[in-house]
Amino acid sequence: MAAPPARSWRVYLSGEIHSDWRERIEAGAGEAGLPVEFSAPVTDHAASDDAGVGTLGEEGEAFWRDHMGAGVNAIRTQTLIRAADIVVVRFGDKYRQWNAAFDAGFSAALGKPIVTLHDAELDHALKEVDRAAQGTARTAEQVVDVLRYVITGQLPGG
Amino acid sequence: MAAPPARSWRVYLSGEIHSDWRERIEAGAGEAGLPVEFSAPVTDHAASDDAGVGTLGEEGEAFWRDHMGAGVNAIRTQTLIRAADIVVVRFGDKYRQWNAAFDAGFSAALGKPIVTLHDAELDHALKEVDRAAQGTARTAEQVVDVLRYVITGQLPGG
Amino acid sequence: MAAPPARSWRVYLSGEIHSDWRERIEAGAGEAGLPVEFSAPVTDHAASDDAGVGTLGEEGEAFWRDHMGAGVNAIRTQTLIRAADIVVVRFGDKYRQWNAAFDAGFSAALGKPIVTLHDAELDHALKEVDRAAQGTARTAEQVVDVLRYVITGQLPGG
Amino acid sequence: MAAPPARSWRVYLSGEIHSDWRERIEAGAGEAGLPVEFSAPVTDHAASDDAGVGTLGEEGEAFWRDHMGAGVNAIRTQTLIRAADIVVVRFGDKYRQWNAAFDAGFSAALGKPIVTLHDAELDHALKEVDRAAQGTARTAEQVVDVLRYVITGQLPGG
Amino acid sequence: MAAPPARSWRVYLSGEIHSDWRERIEAGAGEAGLPVEFSAPVTDHAASDDAGVGTLGEEGEAFWRDHMGAGVNAIRTQTLIRAADIVVVRFGDKYRQWNAAFDAGFSAALGKPIVTLHDAELDHALKEVDRAAQGTARTAEQVVDVLRYVITGQLPGG
Amino acid sequence: MAAPPARSWRVYLSGEIHSDWRERIEAGAGEAGLPVEFSAPVTDHAASDDAGVGTLGEEGEAFWRDHMGAGVNAIRTQTLIRAADIVVVRFGDKYRQWNAAFDAGFSAALGKPIVTLHDAELDHALKEVDRAAQGTARTAEQVVDVLRYVITGQLPGG
Amino acid sequence: MAAPPARSWRVYLSGEIHSDWRERIEAGAGEAGLPVEFSAPVTDHAASDDAGVGTLGEEGEAFWRDHMGAGVNAIRTQTLIRAADIVVVRFGDKYRQWNAAFDAGFSAALGKPIVTLHDAELDHALKEVDRAAQGTARTAEQVVDVLRYVITGQLPGG
Amino acid sequence: MAAPPARSWRVYLSGEIHSDWRERIEAGAGEAGLPVEFSAPVTDHAASDDAGVGTLGEEGEAFWRDHMGAGVNAIRTQTLIRAADIVVVRFGDKYRQWNAAFDAGFSAALGKPIVTLHDAELDHALKEVDRAAQGTARTAEQVVDVLRYVITGQLPGG
Repeated sequence: MAAPPARSWRVYLSGEIHSDWRERIEAGAGEAGLPVEFSAPVTDHAASDDAGVGTLGEEGEAFWRDHMGAGVNAIRTQTLIRAADIVVVRFGDKYRQWNAAFDAGFSAALGKPIVTLHDAELDHALKEVDRAAQGTARTAEQVVDVLRYVITGQLPGG
Repeated sequence: MAAPPARSWRVYLSGEIHSDWRERIEAGAGEAGLPVEFSAPVTDHAASDDAGVGTLGEEGEAFWRDHMGAGVNAIRTQTLIRAADIVVVRFGDKYRQWNAAFDAGFSAALGKPIVTLHDAELDHALKEVDRAAQGTARTAEQVVDVLRYVITGQLPGG
Repeated sequence: MAAPPARSWRVYLSGEIHSDWRERIEAGAGEAGLPVEFSAPVTDHAASDDAGVGTLGEEGEAFWRDHMGAGVNAIRTQTLIRAADIVVVRFGDKYRQWNAAFDAGFSAALGKPIVTLHDAELDHALKEVDRAAQGTARTAEQVVDVLRYVITGQLPGG
Repeated sequence: MAAPPARSWRVYLSGEIHSDWRERIEAGAGEAGLPVEFSAPVTDHAASDDAGVGTLGEEGEAFWRDHMGAGVNAIRTQTLIRAADIVVVRFGDKYRQWNAAFDAGFSAALGKPIVTLHDAELDHALKEVDRAAQGTARTAEQVVDVLRYVITGQLPGG
Repeated sequence: MAAPPARSWRVYLSGEIHSDWRERIEAGAGEAGLPVEFSAPVTDHAASDDAGVGTLGEEGEAFWRDHMGAGVNAIRTQTLIRAADIVVVRFGDKYRQWNAAFDAGFSAALGKPIVTLHDAELDHALKEVDRAAQGTARTAEQVVDVLRYVITGQLPGG
Repeated sequence: MAAPPARSWRVYLSGEIHSDWRERIEAGAGEAGLPVEFSAPVTDHAASDDAGVGTLGEEGEAFWRDHMGAGVNAIRTQTLIRAADIVVVRFGDKYRQWNAAFDAGFSAALGKPIVTLHDAELDHALKEVDRAAQGTARTAEQVVDVLRYVITGQLPGG
Repeated sequence: MAAPPARSWRVYLSGEIHSDWRERIEAGAGEAGLPVEFSAPVTDHAASDDAGVGTLGEEGEAFWRDHMGAGVNAIRTQTLIRAADIVVVRFGDKYRQWNAAFDAGFSAALGKPIVTLHDAELDHALKEVDRAAQGTARTAEQVVDVLRYVITGQLPGG
Repeated sequence: MAAPPARSWRVYLSGEIHSDWRERIEAGAGEAGLPVEFSAPVTDHAASDDAGVGTLGEEGEAFWRDHMGAGVNAIRTQTLIRAADIVVVRFGDKYRQWNAAFDAGFSAALGKPIVTLHDAELDHALKEVDRAAQGTARTAEQVVDVLRYVITGQLPGG
């Protein structure tokens, strides 16, 4: 018995903002007709960096400019994570992406189910994060497969 | 005074997947016109066993294959239990059904009202689980009677 | 600025079942056009007493018959209290109404705002319960006035 | 295997203040050598009634005098209930004892194990409170037996 | 990727009731087409002061009149703060506005994101409150800019 | 029956730092032999203002200097409030003392019993804070009387 | 750097009561000098079955006799699980041991770290329980090794 | 007024394990006579990597070897973080240290005060983590200064 059609699943897509993984997951979920509301951090890198000074006024010092921006971004991210049913956390091969790991820890403490998404070469470095997750995917398509199964009970080819 | 019509009750049906008890409860609730959204684990046994390797990729070792599958299934079950108003837990006469007892403990710690459903011959073995429940039913029809009463205040024949 | 029209307030009406106070509150709220969804325990005394044996099967001993009934009733009451924004608790001049005081304590521990409703002659006996409430009303009309003010900001004659 | 000697169990004794049931439980636990720290509301009726005006200053109106007293008493009772492992709630045959039922509801919402203590003639009126308890005792000696078993695993005569 | 259109953000506007800052934020959010449901305390000062005696009956002593009014107002404010995604707290240059600071502390303990709104001359006095906030705005327009960014990812001029 | 001697009560003294009210409460509790561990914010005004730059390094801008200081002070105050059984909040006649009101709101959301301490001339401005408290004292001696009663059950002259 | 010597770790040993696994873990922890306070359910099977009727009085019906016993046992088990740092859950090859699975679910919902202990032949049936655990041991000695590592950082032979 | 001597502060030191920052903080706190109990993850890199296979048995696949090790390590780290008053999170210039960021997110969701410790060159990459902290230190000595101030109210040179 599948969950009733009325239920919409809220999935937060945390992490890397330099590849099209979110679009691929959304497209895949759309093709599968899944009742999912996706949410995410602001993925426009420049806007995200200016989130504080662009809204609350100028600030000359880099540390505080970042501090202001991170505060404004946190209003969005923490609200959406608290509202999410499932949190997907993507780690790419560039940058340190500490905010993705932070989101994973935040989600874990709240008891949210987590799916991580990254290449095998990051496995050892991400072992604590993966352990806190319910599953580790290698491709956006696998995340769609997980969502389809979780929501409808159907496996690929099933 | 009954609860207003607008309220929909979310009932999670945990446990045994080899008999038609869920269908009977859903049919009974439908006949009674109860505003209930039922949810459940994936009840296709083969799909459930393949939930991990069917979505996240192959795995040769049985322990880890099960581990992957249980992780993916937990995304569904724990989300739906957290969202439920009432959790019904069914124990059949076959298999060990430790996941049903696990769901009961999980629900109890969250303060969810539980109704257990099983034959009298399991009473002694299930005494701790039954004690954590608000009631123990013997038939699917009794569960429907409980739901009708809880939602509308009507007793059978009332 | 009043709360936006879209918000519906959920008000649970706990306590005495032998007078028409619930109907008067509901009628008053209806006349005032307040967006309130009222809920309540099952107020049919006979049905409430038979809630267990009427759904889960016969039981000869009085203590356990009551125990079964209280379990089934608790599925309803605790679910609706947890879902409520406001809990109104009515104490009449008959019976001991320990379940009303129990509901008040349960609501207080959950941080729910409580309004008590009773005559002044019960004040001393109810002082602990009244202290945990946000206000004590003497009439159903006063409860409607509180709800109108809380929801719309309008005082009677205002 | 019993709990290690180092553990001290905190038991809160709520309810009736006009008989010696607390002393009997404490004496019984002392004779059994149980590592229990008992706590209770202030049981001097006159002092309890004057808790507000005796500490925070005079007040002419009866309602507010009670309100002040109930506030000061709640500092004690709610702190001790939150700190308790087990809450025993006693109902006698006099007075309405709504504060005892309130404490029971408060404890239940916090997930505290409850033992009720009252005569059989109050069973029907207390059915909701008893249902939320882990057990109902008829005598102070039975409460001691429960504590001894819970702490040491020994039954009477065992 | 912006949050999906279906999501409505609930924003509670706490604090000063003697200037038009709420109207300016609501107007700005309306012009920007943001899916926001605003809520607020009752901002009619006279009604707010009479919230208790205007609903629950006369009271001669000033302290208790205020006490009754604050209780009724708290039903509204605490319910709306608990339901809010974001809490904006405004401090003006008049009055002590301790209730605004109280709301900020209440929101912080609940983990709600806070935006404070006040002039720079209050910075030192408000440093603890500002530290608990995700950002400090100087104008209502800046609050709108924060909301637009948080909800749509768009910066002013972006 | 008093609480057992082993229990030590933790009382946090929040608010005004320019009079000797804390010393008077501590002295009074000491004379009464009460088992209380008092805690408080750093009450050296100059040190408190320099808490950030004195530990984490220089900062030229006043807003961020305060921000750093408030962060370091919050490590102390929020830890001690979370660990407290009772929170006393003092408002004096100078300064705006928004941090005291913030502490009160923070404590209220955590379910901590609060006692406020202030003159009657502040009653109207503090009505929301007082409503969230279990009692309002006018003098430090009254706070001691409350603590003595709460801990030992003894009233002054009793 | 190891945890400081002052910290004592509380470990609850849930599950099978027909073999000596608890004694072996306790002996091993003792030999390793680990600062652990172990706790457990009452492991005397006959006493456990009589926990209700042996303390609260006779009861003729088997279902209610079990119900009473399970209530009294739950006072012990749920208190000790809530107080535990780590929960070890043992499944043997006999009986259904639903209470062990219930304890695991209860612990998981509370965020307690779990270690399961069972033979490989139970792996498939216990996959959901194992997935909620931080590790699965095959022998009591492995549990001791986990505890020693967790507490002191030392591996066997390390 | 300083916190009473009896209080011991529990500080968890998360993050980098390749420099002596923990020893420097502990030495500094020791010299200052601060009542602090420090705790930390296992900092022996080889032991930490073998935490799973060294206790629970061999495993050939790298992913699952890491998975087992991360599970055993999480028993320690999550227990100690939950028990901590303050969490210090250190980021060094090598490795990705995602577990440190994960710990920060986990601590933030639990409401624990956080102090981050890292060089300025990591500021931009760590802005989300720093925003969730109460302060950012550059040296171990600054962390000691923060602890001394938080616990005793004394600033360096004060």
